[in-house]
Amino acid sequence: MIHVYTGNGKGKTTAAIGMAIRAAGAGYKVFFAQFVKGRPYSELNVLKNIPSLVVKQYGLECFIVKAPTERDIQAARNGLQEVSAVIESATYNLIVLDEACIALYYKLFTLDEFLGVIDLLKPETELVITGRYAPRAIIDKADLVTEMKEIKHYYTKGTEARKGIEY
Amino acid sequence: MIHVYTGNGKGKTTAAIGMAIRAAGAGYKVFFAQFVKGRPYSELNVLKNIPSLVVKQYGLECFIVKAPTERDIQAARNGLQEVSAVIESATYNLIVLDEACIALYYKLFTLDEFLGVIDLLKPETELVITGRYAPRAIIDKADLVTEMKEIKHYYTKGTEARKGIEY
Repeated sequence: MIHVYTGNGKGKTTAAIGMAIRAAGAGYKVFFAQFVKGRPYSELNVLKNIPSLVVKQYGLECFIVKAPTERDIQAARNGLQEVSAVIESATYNLIVLDEACIALYYKLFTLDEFLGVIDLLKPETELVITGRYAPRAIIDKADLVTEMKEIKHYYTKGTEARKGIEY
Repeated sequence: MIHVYTGNGKGKTTAAIGMAIRAAGAGYKVFFAQFVKGRPYSELNVLKNIPSLVVKQYGLECFIVKAPTERDIQAARNGLQEVSAVIESATYNLIVLDEACIALYYKLFTLDEFLGVIDLLKPETELVITGRYAPRAIIDKADLVTEMKEIKHYYTKGTEARKGIEY
């Protein structure tokens, strides 16, 4: 099954982390990939200590501000290639592609390239895709889509991202 | 800050698990309470192994079907009392009240009782509340609200809840 967690509200990456924890807790093998992101997020301290869970980051330390650099593109493209092999191998029960929709939004790879990778998915593997701006073609392909809709956010009142809460 | 994750889509409890993992990864103390739920969910196998994280369930093994029993009510009320002391003590950096909105929906305790407990929250503690049907008074009190909106779900095609994915 393919899950998509999209929308402008908080909870997409955390939901993917929750899925990874639940699957690992059930004894499943989990591959947790992050596109665009390359920072040492707090959650990785826990995820990396779970033996049946592999974490890979395909982003740089610094965020993409206006336009992606050649290095951003290269990191994402390398990631997609690695993920492609991981999906095809069917070695993992759950594969998370965190912020894959953001990688698509920044055109780090094309939608066609991404759909080609998703098409390699074996029926027994669960795939979780996150990120704002999920394209229609991915929503159509998904079996489950949740829109995380921002009703209210403390960002708008000036609270900045906090360690342990946002990263 | 108070977070509310509500709505009819998948991702509320998993987002709360993700928040707990991120906070624990940052070295924070986490109290993860589940109302209404009392089953040995897969994710608990991981959460219970994290030293800085305490898990408590205030629900029974069997779900509430039509109306709550006296035991459902008692379990939730005991939970609210325990949570009240936990919130007041300010011993934890993050407190999760998973499915608290469902406990309210089933009237296991009153909205006023619940709001009274929330009012004990110290400014330095982060509180996460989940569950469908978040009442207006809780949304008003929250600093962050995300509606997990079901766009598509494989349940509607007959796929039942699966171990490691839904529980």
